[in-house]
Order: sequence, then structure tokens, then C-alpha cells
Amino acid sequence: MFSKKVLASLANSSVIRQMFEVGVRMRAEFGAEFVFDFSLGNPDPEPPQQTLDVLKRLINSDVRGLHSYMSNAGHQSVREAIAASLNTSGANITYKNVVMTVGAGGALNVIFKALLNPGEEVVALIPYFMEYKTYSANFDAKLITVNSLMDTFLPDMAALEKAITPNTKAVIITSPNNPTGAIYPESTLMELESLLQRKGKEYGTVIYVISDEPYREIVYDGATVPQVLSIIQNSIVAYSFSKSLSLAGERIGYVAASSSIEDVNTLMDALIYANRSLGFVNAPSLFQLAIAESLNITVDTNIYRERRDLLYDHLIGLGFECVKPQGAFYLFPKCPMPDDQAFNEAALKRNIIIVPGSGFGCPGYFRLAYCVGLDVIQRSLPAFTLLAQDIGLK
Amino acid sequence: MFSKKVLASLANSSVIRQMFEVGVRMRAEFGAEFVFDFSLGNPDPEPPQQTLDVLKRLINSDVRGLHSYMSNAGHQSVREAIAASLNTSGANITYKNVVMTVGAGGALNVIFKALLNPGEEVVALIPYFMEYKTYSANFDAKLITVNSLMDTFLPDMAALEKAITPNTKAVIITSPNNPTGAIYPESTLMELESLLQRKGKEYGTVIYVISDEPYREIVYDGATVPQVLSIIQNSIVAYSFSKSLSLAGERIGYVAASSSIEDVNTLMDALIYANRSLGFVNAPSLFQLAIAESLNITVDTNIYRERRDLLYDHLIGLGFECVKPQGAFYLFPKCPMPDDQAFNEAALKRNIIIVPGSGFGCPGYFRLAYCVGLDVIQRSLPAFTLLAQDIGLK
Repeated sequence: MFSKKVLASLANSSVIRQMFEVGVRMRAEFGAEFVFDFSLGNPDPEPPQQTLDVLKRLINSDVRGLHSYMSNAGHQSVREAIAASLNTSGANITYKNVVMTVGAGGALNVIFKALLNPGEEVVALIPYFMEYKTYSANFDAKLITVNSLMDTFLPDMAALEKAITPNTKAVIITSPNNPTGAIYPESTLMELESLLQRKGKEYGTVIYVISDEPYREIVYDGATVPQVLSIIQNSIVAYSFSKSLSLAGERIGYVAASSSIEDVNTLMDALIYANRSLGFVNAPSLFQLAIAESLNITVDTNIYRERRDLLYDHLIGLGFECVKPQGAFYLFPKCPMPDDQAFNEAALKRNIIIVPGSGFGCPGYFRLAYCVGLDVIQRSLPAFTLLAQDIGLK
Repeated sequence: MFSKKVLASLANSSVIRQMFEVGVRMRAEFGAEFVFDFSLGNPDPEPPQQTLDVLKRLINSDVRGLHSYMSNAGHQSVREAIAASLNTSGANITYKNVVMTVGAGGALNVIFKALLNPGEEVVALIPYFMEYKTYSANFDAKLITVNSLMDTFLPDMAALEKAITPNTKAVIITSPNNPTGAIYPESTLMELESLLQRKGKEYGTVIYVISDEPYREIVYDGATVPQVLSIIQNSIVAYSFSKSLSLAGERIGYVAASSSIEDVNTLMDALIYANRSLGFVNAPSLFQLAIAESLNITVDTNIYRERRDLLYDHLIGLGFECVKPQGAFYLFPKCPMPDDQAFNEAALKRNIIIVPGSGFGCPGYFRLAYCVGLDVIQRSLPAFTLLAQDIGLK
């Protein structure tokens, strides 16, 4: 009666969102302080004070038209501020290369719609954010997945090369990575660029890199994130302020395309058309204006570092194996039991809500989002200790 | 190189948005006060003071999590408030029948994705908002258009009946109408319900009514808008606060589905899935909370009535023919020249920006959005007088 495609998808809907809904139910049953919900990347810290102050100033001002339509691409002044900000790290773009979007989810759909023809392929690196598959399906494209190097979670270039075909339209990367926290160094991006240029010449195609960067500023221990736009010729960035400014519910982000893409002006027209025709129309106006004055700041990453260290050290102490994340706010430890689902259930018995690795195309691991309150992590530690005992770890 | 479907669409992109961009260029060339831009339904009045006060209170409060993710369907408290508000006019729904969306553009895409299979048909009544065609194409469905009664702009039931086939999945209606301002009376909705039930039985199908209602509260002269949800069994409402609260740029709206739809719970799951998978994720959080406390108010419709009367009376005095709108904020006069495009150019010579009727599938008419400043309308009157002389009207 309804869309067959949607009905078929309902059965295997987002594992992350399923676990989030489990959390909602468990909090109602056991009380919020007895549930340790690590399912969703929903930042616990409030937005930075500077961003809140800008919002207050805008709302308390008598400037007219704050809430009106603007061009579908967004406020030009905001696009200019973003271009200038990206140029400080080498991007070499103008406001015309920027389209404001409804978060990174909106940005990725806009990019996919602008780029993809039915049957074309997007390559993602395992583990990957499962929505990439959903978004590809929106445009009848295929998501092809390929293993990473599992000791570092960096791309396996040989495996990636094998996955690239004449139908490959794009490779999607996420650095800092969700769920692993890995950061791709400049050398990796240069290898990727070299590979894609070579394969593009071989097949007579252009292979784009879609760089999903919501965690760009969430990094630790002095790590730096190289500027994809300045390294990869055919790169398109999907950015969100959900994490850097703790504005996940407000749906504000952008697409920025490298000025070295052939026919980039046509691509920008296609992106703006996609933004309009998918029904986004434009990114929310007030938050466009607010983020434009917050481009030089982020939430205090020490908040997340402290939580990472507390949880990571405790888990390692219990015998879990985990690559220490350099960025983002997730741990992606190895699953200590052969059966993912059995481990998931064991964790739930201790009121610990995880997301199984299968939710990222990577069984044998699990994800913990440590962007929750410090108190949640503190209270969860004894539960993890009991869980380790339950499953006979060590 | 990019999406062929999108590239093909770029050529005949939204006429409304094209004329809006013409206006931007003309304002830069001639100065804003010498351009009379009636192209876009972008409300001139600021949001009601009550809504602005709620926004201020929320932003100035220290409530945590205002900007966080919530369930993809939206804040439950907001959905409850909307259901209660719709029930006062007879809807009989709960919060489970409501999904918060990124405006009506988001709502319509979510509805179309949840309902439509490739090749299925959506019937729209001429003149219609051209984005319905774009949105149908997103899901490989066909938009079938059928003439209205051109003296009243009400549905031509005989013509509509002929347009309904076994492939008809939905009829989309807009009352108060964009671009005509017509309001469908209860008797029309009852006839429509009777027709669709009869044809549905004949074909063994369910034919939904998608009711696009962004202008529901913008009505004049004591007109009332009947509650579609309480009259039509298989009705799904797309609503936006863009016009009623002058929040067009903030992208806040909802879908509400009749509780008498068979398998309505599955439909709601499909709508929520569509909201997530199209990349909206959720409607902007702060504005969800703000509109929930503004459900009993709208912008002062006297603002629009005054502008309608001033422009309408002047045009009638000049010899234009126009059905007087009962709602929304558009005039849709007959084009006084046989060639739409020639009239468009004649208007542009007087710095008047209209949207040709072809932008609504209805050549031989043109649309004026009178949601502009009163001063713009006042200054435009001499220009309309000169235009009437230029084309030898009367």
C-alpha cells in the first residue's frame, strides 16, 4: 500500500537509532541514572558560550528578516565567511563553492543527488556510517564496501584499488572517523589522490572524494586533520556543526566543493538545485547566521578527552582491545565474544547500551559514543567491570 | 559527469526562483526602492511578538539540550501540542500521527517517499505549485495535472474523475490555494472524498489526499478553511509555519496523518524513516519548541488583507481581470496579452517582477505575491498604471 522500497527498509532500519530507542525505554523502566546509554552521537556538552551569545544577540536584536527565505544556497555573507575560513587552511575557494545545508545528512543527500546516476557506485571503507548505504539507495546507486587496515583503521589501498570499477563515481571518507576515531594523515590522502587520478585515467572517468567531516575539530593529543579540499582535486566536503558546536538538533551544515573540479560551476548549480528539490529549500536561517560568527571556535575538546581517557583506560584495564581514538567521540573496541548479538545482550543486562559493529558493516567490534555526561561514564565503570566478569573476560 | 536527471532539470528550473534571482539583480542595478518584486512568497511581516518572545525566553534560559538530537519524529511534547491543536477542529489524532519536518517542502518529500512507488501517479489541480512535479520526480512517480474550474479555481470533479486511474496513488490539494487564493469549501472536500472512495473501490486501490496547507490561517473576510483530516478518510496533511508565523527561512513544519487510514502506524513508521533517510534527520529543535507555544496565533492577517485590497482594487481599476482571493497572499490575474512571455517582459520594463502562469502549469495568467511591504505595493501602483498604458489595456 505504501512505498515498497521504504517498507522493505523498515525491517532493517538504523541499528544506532534502534539502540537509541532501546535506551529511551530502559530509562523509563530503570530510571535515567541506572542506564548507561552509549548509542547515539548526541553531544552532551552545551554549545560554546560564544555561540549562545551570538544567538542571544541575534534574537534580542530588532534586525528584520532573520527568519526569512534567502537564496537556496544560503546567506551569501555566511557562505563568504565559510569560504574565508576554509581558505586559511589552504582551500582556495569562494562563496560560490559553498552551499549551506540541513546538517551533514542534508549535505550528503544533496551531494549524492547532484552526482549519482542509477547503478553508479560509491565506495565506503569498513567500518562506515550505515546511512551512507541508505543515502546511496535514495538515488538507486550502489554502496560498495571495502575493508580498512584493522590495526590502524586507515585505508587498505590495495583493497580499495580492487574495489574501483568504471562505475565508481565516488569514494566516501570520514576523518576523524565514525566509529573508529582514526584520522587519515596527509600521506594517506595523497596516496588516495594518486590512486583515484590513476584509476580515473585508466577508465576515462572522474572519481570524486566525498569527505564527511562532522568531527573535523574534535581531535586529541595535538593531532591535526589535513585539509582534504587542498589535497584532492575532485573533493567535495560535507560538513556539520552538530558536533563542533553541539548543535545536532538544529540541522546546520554545508557542502564545499574544490575549485579544481572540472565544471565546478555546473556542479554548484546541481547542488543548489538538489538542496531545493529534495525539499530542504535552504538551511535554517537563524543558525546559518549564528555559526558564521562561530567559525573560529569549537566546544572544548578537553571535555571529550577526559571522557575518552576514563572509559578507554578502564576498558583496557578490563582486558578489552581497542585502537585509541585520535578524534571524534567514539570507542570501537573488539567484541570480546564470538557472537556480537550475545555480547550486545550481555551488555544490556548490565544496562549498558552499545551499538554492535554490524551497524557499521563491521561485525566483531562494537561502538561506544562517549559524548555522554562524565557522570554517566563514571557510573558505568562498575557496570563494565561486572560485564567483563559476566562474560569471563581475561 | 554529474547526475543526468539533475542536469536535465537545471535548464527548466523553478520559474519562481528564477524570477527571485532576477529581482536580486535588478535591485543591485536600480536600487531596492525602484524594483517591485512580487515573485516570491517570502513574508514581509516579522513573526508575531508572542513567537519572538518564546524564542527569547528559550534562548535566554539555561535549559540544557535545547539544541540536541531528539527522536527522528520530533519532540514528543511538540507533537502532542500539535495533535491537541488539530483535535480542537475535529481531527481525532494523537502525537503518534504527527511527524515534525523541515518545512512543508520537507513534509511533502517525506510523504511522497513514504507513499510512492515508481510509475505511480499523483494528481494535481491546475494551477499548481510546480515543485509538486519536482518532488514526484524524486521518487520516479508521475504528476498528472487536471484543469480546475477557471471562474472559481475550485476542482472540476468531472475532469478530476477522468484523470484517476488504477495507478493513482494520491490527489494533492492546496487550500487556501497557491497561486489563486481559493478556499475549498466543505462541500468540495466531501465531493472529493466521495469520488475517491468510489474510484478506490472500483480499482481496488486506496487513493490518498495530500493536503498542502501552509496558508491554512491566512484567510480574509471571515472565510473558514474546513479541516481536511476530519472529512477525508485517507488524508495526510503537510503543514508549514513559514507563512502563519513568518518563519519561512527556518524550515519548520509537520506531517499529520488521519487516524482512519488503514495501517496508519506502518505509515507513520514509513514517514519517520523517510524523514531520517532523506537526510533531514529531524526538524530544527529550537523552532519545534518555539512553534509549540505559538499554535494559537498567527501573523495579523489584516496586514495581508490591506495589501491585497490595495493591489487588487488598483489592478481591477486598470482593467485587469482577477478572481478575488479568499486566502493566502497571491493574486492570480488573467494575463492581459496573448503572449505570457511578452507580458512578463513588459512588466520587467516597469521594474515589476511577476511569475508567469506557466510557472504553475497555467499559461494565460500571472502571479503576484503581495506578501511584500505595504510601501512596495504603494510605490508599485504608478508602475502598474504605466504598464497598463504600455500594453494598451482597456
